[in-house]
Amino acid sequence: MVNYPGGVKKNLPKKETSYAKRGMMFEDMINKSCEFYRDTKRAVLHKKPTPITIVKVDYPERAHAKVTEAYFKTPSTTDYNGIYKGRYLDFEAKNTNNASSLPLHNFHEHQIEHMRACHEQGAVAFVLVAFSKFNRYFYLPFEGLAAFWDAAAKDEGRKSIPLSYFEASCPEIELDLYGRLKFLDIVDKEVKNG
Amino acid sequence: MVNYPGGVKKNLPKKETSYAKRGMMFEDMINKSCEFYRDTKRAVLHKKPTPITIVKVDYPERAHAKVTEAYFKTPSTTDYNGIYKGRYLDFEAKNTNNASSLPLHNFHEHQIEHMRACHEQGAVAFVLVAFSKFNRYFYLPFEGLAAFWDAAAKDEGRKSIPLSYFEASCPEIELDLYGRLKFLDIVDKEVKNG
Repeated sequence: MVNYPGGVKKNLPKKETSYAKRGMMFEDMINKSCEFYRDTKRAVLHKKPTPITIVKVDYPERAHAKVTEAYFKTPSTTDYNGIYKGRYLDFEAKNTNNASSLPLHNFHEHQIEHMRACHEQGAVAFVLVAFSKFNRYFYLPFEGLAAFWDAAAKDEGRKSIPLSYFEASCPEIELDLYGRLKFLDIVDKEVKNG
Repeated sequence: MVNYPGGVKKNLPKKETSYAKRGMMFEDMINKSCEFYRDTKRAVLHKKPTPITIVKVDYPERAHAKVTEAYFKTPSTTDYNGIYKGRYLDFEAKNTNNASSLPLHNFHEHQIEHMRACHEQGAVAFVLVAFSKFNRYFYLPFEGLAAFWDAAAKDEGRKSIPLSYFEASCPEIELDLYGRLKFLDIVDKEVKNG
């Protein structure tokens, strides 16, 4: 792969979409991709439910429980996993509004350690990264993420992954005509090369 | 494997533990097994969070969201998955208080179809079954479950899987000294034979 010396700057028109909405849109795009892959029997990939601590449950109607007090928990794993061509896939989705890098504070320590453990067991572990300002999407293999994370943990590296790194070293993911991310095409190539 | 003509009847002393508690205990046993397997780096297996539809969220304190209205959803997948020796594992846990069979109404159509799709992709798909009256635990491969499920769907078969079938055709799972289910030992043998 070609290594550019710096980041290629792009001047794309700004859109009206809010950042929070963009994060949701990215998740939607991935969920639709997973659904399409399941429907066409190409892979079985699912988003895990949001982890929640349930404190109080009421039963206003028979056999219909209503949760009245619950709190969001920090996820101890990644958001997505499943199977593709007999391989275990484990991945996370990260959307950034930053124009020049993906800050590492987007990840939890637990997520990194989970992906590391999966990687050691032979999983295809990666992150789907959206630079929402430019509508650009990259496939970040766990090894790449780990290199930045481990350097930052030793206080030797930067606390973010620059866009220039993505442009130089990570496959860019295309969309199909329905706005679904074609990330399994990248997995095919990565598994072949790896 | 030996095929007994009928179910071997056992007269075990009855215990005081309630059935609901037994279901929880079984889930606890599996969660502890998964934790132990993760800690010893043998496998990366997790229980998925309970799927919930969130309706209302309050913010009584800054940066501390409180869910005040939510409902349980029917799971569209199984409770557990992960990776072991490079293989994708997908499994469900079912506890029955029935003394002679596991009723098929313990399963949702969605769970069966999910396991079938995983199985077709090359997953090791199975159910950990507890007959709590006898403290006996079996490993039910997806193929075995599918045979009973598909026959029942065609109105040709019974609506439950008899204990005698488990005794004759499913590996029984042993516990370790700490009450953890040693189900990966069974996976090892199944994968070798399959």
